[in-house]
Amino acid sequence: MKLLVVNPNISTGVTELIRAEAIRSASEGTEITALTADFGVAYIETRFEAMVGAYATAEKVAANVAGHDAVVVAAFGDPGLAALREVLQVPVTGMTEASLACACQLGSRFSIVSISPRMRGWYLDTVHAYHLSGRLASFRSLNEPLKDVVTVQEEQGERLIELANRCVREDGADVIVLAGAPLAGLARTIKHLLPAPVVDGVSSAIQQAEMLARLRPEKAREGSYASPPQKLNKGLSLSMRALIVANS
Amino acid sequence: MKLLVVNPNISTGVTELIRAEAIRSASEGTEITALTADFGVAYIETRFEAMVGAYATAEKVAANVAGHDAVVVAAFGDPGLAALREVLQVPVTGMTEASLACACQLGSRFSIVSISPRMRGWYLDTVHAYHLSGRLASFRSLNEPLKDVVTVQEEQGERLIELANRCVREDGADVIVLAGAPLAGLARTIKHLLPAPVVDGVSSAIQQAEMLARLRPEKAREGSYASPPQKLNKGLSLSMRALIVANS
Amino acid sequence: MKLLVVNPNISTGVTELIRAEAIRSASEGTEITALTADFGVAYIETRFEAMVGAYATAEKVAANVAGHDAVVVAAFGDPGLAALREVLQVPVTGMTEASLACACQLGSRFSIVSISPRMRGWYLDTVHAYHLSGRLASFRSLNEPLKDVVTVQEEQGERLIELANRCVREDGADVIVLAGAPLAGLARTIKHLLPAPVVDGVSSAIQQAEMLARLRPEKAREGSYASPPQKLNKGLSLSMRALIVANS
Amino acid sequence: MKLLVVNPNISTGVTELIRAEAIRSASEGTEITALTADFGVAYIETRFEAMVGAYATAEKVAANVAGHDAVVVAAFGDPGLAALREVLQVPVTGMTEASLACACQLGSRFSIVSISPRMRGWYLDTVHAYHLSGRLASFRSLNEPLKDVVTVQEEQGERLIELANRCVREDGADVIVLAGAPLAGLARTIKHLLPAPVVDGVSSAIQQAEMLARLRPEKAREGSYASPPQKLNKGLSLSMRALIVANS
Amino acid sequence: MKLLVVNPNISTGVTELIRAEAIRSASEGTEITALTADFGVAYIETRFEAMVGAYATAEKVAANVAGHDAVVVAAFGDPGLAALREVLQVPVTGMTEASLACACQLGSRFSIVSISPRMRGWYLDTVHAYHLSGRLASFRSLNEPLKDVVTVQEEQGERLIELANRCVREDGADVIVLAGAPLAGLARTIKHLLPAPVVDGVSSAIQQAEMLARLRPEKAREGSYASPPQKLNKGLSLSMRALIVANS
Amino acid sequence: MKLLVVNPNISTGVTELIRAEAIRSASEGTEITALTADFGVAYIETRFEAMVGAYATAEKVAANVAGHDAVVVAAFGDPGLAALREVLQVPVTGMTEASLACACQLGSRFSIVSISPRMRGWYLDTVHAYHLSGRLASFRSLNEPLKDVVTVQEEQGERLIELANRCVREDGADVIVLAGAPLAGLARTIKHLLPAPVVDGVSSAIQQAEMLARLRPEKAREGSYASPPQKLNKGLSLSMRALIVANS
Repeated sequence: MKLLVVNPNISTGVTELIRAEAIRSASEGTEITALTADFGVAYIETRFEAMVGAYATAEKVAANVAGHDAVVVAAFGDPGLAALREVLQVPVTGMTEASLACACQLGSRFSIVSISPRMRGWYLDTVHAYHLSGRLASFRSLNEPLKDVVTVQEEQGERLIELANRCVREDGADVIVLAGAPLAGLARTIKHLLPAPVVDGVSSAIQQAEMLARLRPEKAREGSYASPPQKLNKGLSLSMRALIVANS
Repeated sequence: MKLLVVNPNISTGVTELIRAEAIRSASEGTEITALTADFGVAYIETRFEAMVGAYATAEKVAANVAGHDAVVVAAFGDPGLAALREVLQVPVTGMTEASLACACQLGSRFSIVSISPRMRGWYLDTVHAYHLSGRLASFRSLNEPLKDVVTVQEEQGERLIELANRCVREDGADVIVLAGAPLAGLARTIKHLLPAPVVDGVSSAIQQAEMLARLRPEKAREGSYASPPQKLNKGLSLSMRALIVANS
Repeated sequence: MKLLVVNPNISTGVTELIRAEAIRSASEGTEITALTADFGVAYIETRFEAMVGAYATAEKVAANVAGHDAVVVAAFGDPGLAALREVLQVPVTGMTEASLACACQLGSRFSIVSISPRMRGWYLDTVHAYHLSGRLASFRSLNEPLKDVVTVQEEQGERLIELANRCVREDGADVIVLAGAPLAGLARTIKHLLPAPVVDGVSSAIQQAEMLARLRPEKAREGSYASPPQKLNKGLSLSMRALIVANS
Repeated sequence: MKLLVVNPNISTGVTELIRAEAIRSASEGTEITALTADFGVAYIETRFEAMVGAYATAEKVAANVAGHDAVVVAAFGDPGLAALREVLQVPVTGMTEASLACACQLGSRFSIVSISPRMRGWYLDTVHAYHLSGRLASFRSLNEPLKDVVTVQEEQGERLIELANRCVREDGADVIVLAGAPLAGLARTIKHLLPAPVVDGVSSAIQQAEMLARLRPEKAREGSYASPPQKLNKGLSLSMRALIVANS
Repeated sequence: MKLLVVNPNISTGVTELIRAEAIRSASEGTEITALTADFGVAYIETRFEAMVGAYATAEKVAANVAGHDAVVVAAFGDPGLAALREVLQVPVTGMTEASLACACQLGSRFSIVSISPRMRGWYLDTVHAYHLSGRLASFRSLNEPLKDVVTVQEEQGERLIELANRCVREDGADVIVLAGAPLAGLARTIKHLLPAPVVDGVSSAIQQAEMLARLRPEKAREGSYASPPQKLNKGLSLSMRALIVANS
Repeated sequence: MKLLVVNPNISTGVTELIRAEAIRSASEGTEITALTADFGVAYIETRFEAMVGAYATAEKVAANVAGHDAVVVAAFGDPGLAALREVLQVPVTGMTEASLACACQLGSRFSIVSISPRMRGWYLDTVHAYHLSGRLASFRSLNEPLKDVVTVQEEQGERLIELANRCVREDGADVIVLAGAPLAGLARTIKHLLPAPVVDGVSSAIQQAEMLARLRPEKAREGSYASPPQKLNKGLSLSMRALIVANS
């Protein structure tokens, strides 16, 4: 099985974190293609950055999806996920969607632990979009500006564990979701230190992508996830156009 | 007052419909700048097309917002609206958001009448994003492929009136929302033929944009609609970069 | 354009605050008729007082609506609003409904800052009635008995700003709603001191009333906001009876 | 035990239907005082009529509550119920609230069968106010104008049974709620003809009122159902004023 | 009237608390049969224990229901309640369902005060199952291990009153629900010490069970609470089999 | 990897269907232990039967879980799932939970197609328990009594395809969920005949169980899914007791 994993932001360091955890998480025989967006910002914390990341991810997926069995959008907030689901012939999932799917099978309520307070509002919107606000126990985050997204795990590990503990003890979480690609792999390291199960965006997304690839669902031919009806277009890259045409 | 109205799809014919209704709806003294996206598709019916339209709209707004008092995203589904709200110094609204704001002040439950059945799922997602699913009485649409988005009003006017009647009589709607830029102006023409009040995306958005401009709200400096924190970026157009930099 | 603004409580001092802010908010050429309820209580904090205020407002509107283009119910909680929407030929809005319509176009989540803790439960019920509980970040209020509703802005301004700051920083609000007619005009004064946009009931209601008047929606002839079916009545004032009869 | 039952509309014929069913439903030893509103309309189908009925009911209760152990607001839609709960020393319930409390203990989802299609929107609002929209399977009603509210049971009995059957078989209702005071007693007559349990507003309200009276709950001294804080008032009847003063 | 009250756990001491409060709560002439589960655990705090308690309760009810007019499942969380509602010819209610039905008729929002923090997640699930999460102001509990469920009232009475006060003053509760059979009767003792009405599982369940018995609802013959269709079964006790067969 | 799959009803024929599809769905190297409940009914359609099935499943799991890496509750409605999640050291999922997790990653709204109309109410309750009612487009089912649960696929295949088509075309489903163990494997056979992706309880549950096993989540030590606190118990089988004791 071949999985295409696209990092919607431009940090190749984060892509390496994602790739490493993706390889650790994948089943034997699964190959990982991990790519970085060609344009955008260093780290996605806002709806505007996610909008840019969505387009950059779509471009990258369009140009590289051939030969893959499933696609992973590797940023929390899942930029471009629903859009790609309409046009791809193979399944696609994202870090938030997949980690929530995992978390919901480990307990009734989950908390999200994040590296930046700025993400709070946007993540709440994202959880609402998946209809799971009623299962969100709390959102907690570091509240200082990040020095470096690549080294946040080492520098803030202790503090993140403390936040996770408070989610369980004060907020009633049954499961902890470590949000954000820069935390890729942390769940694996700290899980025995926490009072409740912990899930991680990258490993969840790899697992769910493999699952979707194994189910081999038919591409929707009707309904709101069928390919868009053919129509005039303008100014799109060749691969984006091919994506639309191939699907119609 | 100057309003910037951007059509997220590439149909200049639709832009003309929008411009005409915008001018009819605007208060005396309001100037309308109506622009068409530089890239994208002829008509937005899907999440993928909306994702493309969001980026094209952001580019167009970034390059043209200077000197305007408020911005209107002139497609149903509001592509890019929340993203733009984070980075613009002036208020911004969209056709769905604004028409729902109007509809909710005219009755308890509204129905959406649309020109394409394909939009159903995506519009339901959009209404859910605004937390108004509980006030949606129904979604009804034409169900044949459109010949031409520019002439749909003439060709399908009778059928649209019939759909609106069924929304009120069978589905319990108190208000009808005519969805989609190609229906711009129709509400004005048929309102006396319907058993309940009707709102239209363009006139609602112009009204709400004027309202927001008159309120002169401060730009958020904190919270999830503050400008994104400054960070490395790559591959963005000059005007998009200026938008981010100007705001930080 | 002529707007009829009715204060549902008996404080003429509050009516003057409302009138002043209404005039400041209104577009050029809009005339404001600001009236005070003939019976009821000095300030509405409870469901019982709102029930009395609803009836007093209906009487006042019935006797004075002729010649106006839209009506504003000028108390938070919107006493009598939905009832009046059924019987009036012109649009009507209220301070809560209108300020929530404005707030929802400025951010994802809003907090309500109020002058009395007593209002908490009733306001939560009101926000729920508009289906917007999921967008309410928090309710915060002064918690001492008010000395005087007319001077609350001067005496408690600092404290209200502090509450608004906590709504943004601790509760995740994107927008602040200053609730209650006695705070009319405060938003205008303090908006540059707050970290997020602020809306005010009176200015929001004036803006939305103008907007509704400009849309010139048809009066519902069917659905749950059509005029009540004609039937025997008894003990109603002449103007209330005229309202029912005129509409049937 | 003495129960005060107030009919919020002016039809003494309906009051007699209510009284008769109240007496049939009440426990041995319970005395029923059934009164008719002094002003208002013949039958409440709309929010405006309910607003009038709320005030008329409050007046009637204020003047007559002394010596009673609990109060019943005897119209569907519960006009004035929440308001009265704040000011009365004894418990109060209403036909909708009580019948939903009964229905929810007989199944997961209920349907409302009503005598007028006009009530649909307002009843949906009422069910939403109680947070039970998710348990409402459907609303069905007669759809011709009523000849006479007092004789509707005889004339429309067959049709009402058919509607109830469709609620169970087509809409998935586990329980039928017969809505509206003019249907008082019908549940008793037809229950063996229906495929699922049926509840009736009057008998439910009498049962729940007796239940509340037996629980002898303390009057709230804090929270949003405490008596309103004392303040200036004007133009209220002596008994309404006594109600406020007695409670402060 | 005869009520069958089954304690789903094995503590006869708790059954005595339940019986005593049931007798105090019941109307004159009501006879109480209070029984203890034959197998299970000493006190139910978890979903697993509730699952065992559900089966034990069903066995006990199956063997003893003959001759009773209604059944009460006497543990918070209502183990087995919905299942029994399908197979019994007489009405059945439970401590959570009934106390929420009472609480909702005394105010808009209620808080649950419990003897163990462990119950939090499961109770939230239970309140959600009844669609009343939006009316739950808060859950608060003692947070030390219980020495003895039978003496918790004496030992922890002061602390429980303090928790109830915080629910009203800090969390916005209008009504307090004292959860858990070991608190049976406490509401009666402390109600004059609390700032808002308080309800108790046992007295609420007895009241609602009497109410349901007086309504004499028909057993559902269709819908999801009709008796299960007849089919092969194996390994069930005679009384459980009789319950299924008798109902088909 | 070894998965324990327990059929909560007594039909060994259904267990064979489940086993066959489980083997087809599982990854290479995964071993399936498929067991049948020792007591209960032939097919679970109701809450009462699910309550019996939950206990029977718990017994079977308790006696056989040793040596397995994850557990699947193999009936729609997931009898006993949440209870088992508290006491098992390994992950556990169920057919409804897992198929909804899969469906939600293939589209926005899903419909459930079932073999019996009786399941409607109970399935709606189950979907609500997972907070996904807002994503349920519709429930449709065969409506004649089943001749034989083992042969339903052959006899009713055509009709089930027709129902699935109506879910997509009339109800707006993006994904079809084929509900019920007797339909195990059907999705695989008919997926190319349907206009939208289809998921099946058994293959979804096997996939999600493998996924959970690979994540190797820590057993909750705190929160509402920690093992129940140790306490007196009585009348439990040795393996059920071992489960509780082993976990404390």
